Amino acid sequence: MAPVAPRSGDAIFANIERVNAELFTLTYGAIVRQLLTDLEEVEEVNKQLEQMGYNIGIRLIDEFLAKSNVSRCVDFRETADVIAKVGFKMFLGVTASVSNWDAEGTCCSIILEDNPLVDFVELPDTCQGLYYCNMLSGVIRGALEMVSMKTEVTWIRDVLRGDDVFELQVKLLKQVPEEYPYKDDE
Amino acid sequence: MAPVAPRSGDAIFANIERVNAELFTLTYGAIVRQLLTDLEEVEEVNKQLEQMGYNIGIRLIDEFLAKSNVSRCVDFRETADVIAKVGFKMFLGVTASVSNWDAEGTCCSIILEDNPLVDFVELPDTCQGLYYCNMLSGVIRGALEMVSMKTEVTWIRDVLRGDDVFELQVKLLKQVPEEYPYKDDE
Repeated sequence: MAPVAPRSGDAIFANIERVNAELFTLTYGAIVRQLLTDLEEVEEVNKQLEQMGYNIGIRLIDEFLAKSNVSRCVDFRETADVIAKVGFKMFLGVTASVSNWDAEGTCCSIILEDNPLVDFVELPDTCQGLYYCNMLSGVIRGALEMVSMKTEVTWIRDVLRGDDVFELQVKLLKQVPEEYPYKDDE
Repeated sequence: MAPVAPRSGDAIFANIERVNAELFTLTYGAIVRQLLTDLEEVEEVNKQLEQMGYNIGIRLIDEFLAKSNVSRCVDFRETADVIAKVGFKMFLGVTASVSNWDAEGTCCSIILEDNPLVDFVELPDTCQGLYYCNMLSGVIRGALEMVSMKTEVTWIRDVLRGDDVFELQVKLLKQVPEEYPYKDDE
């Protein structure tokens, strides 16, 4: 039987429960502000945002697999494509693109031109080291870990730091071969 | 000229930018967890969630007024109706109802049966005093303050505490008469 084709991000996005993007943007801003107050060090805030994202990603992958009809990706290239074209659309309502592949096909960039997290955001001078959207990199790392891919996700470009787009580098560190939960003879 | 009729919450909700509700739910959960870790006292967490909501509400009211075509409400009764039927739909995608009016028309309850903030949430025993959704009460207080209504917003029932619905009591404390920014002869 042919595998069920993944639904496009648009089609999925049209049919899932959603909330107002501005409410989400302001809520996310409230987290960042809270962390800046509590943790003081910008480096610590980056780490905490990433960790929060990781915790979200390991849960969000279930919703993603359930709603997207995406089944096992053949390789990391396909995985990156699915994140950019289906994942970002499904969760944030925006489309991302993939570029800057290395020769081995284990490292690429996800480019985001539109990012609802940063609407109305300007970083004050005291926050220049902040990766404001670092929750996103954690979400990707967490979600991929649940499908057996250990990755490192790093910001290369950031509109809030004066770049023209957001660029997230996703590097595959290790792919744990998936094992079936049951042996055939059980 | 007759005032422009407010658009229904459904029509507005269909036409605004949105994000995935589960992402919002998990992000909100991450805030609550962060506050519980940082502040330790559940009472302090309630206060901080309310304050975050207040800060969001004073900004969200602009989006509300811009997108909803709601103009000045004639009285607090109409205001409460608009919050329940247009506001909740526009921001969370759910509809609320209004009940339990006092004789003076200055205190009522907003009843919420469906609340995306609490999907998958269960409170552990250590958090029994937590008003998990307290950000919502802050949002209402903040938004109303920007249209000159000082209110007190209190949880009366909470599904996470075993009640059948969420009930938010909204009490009008003081209505500051709006003044035109310019005098007629200026």
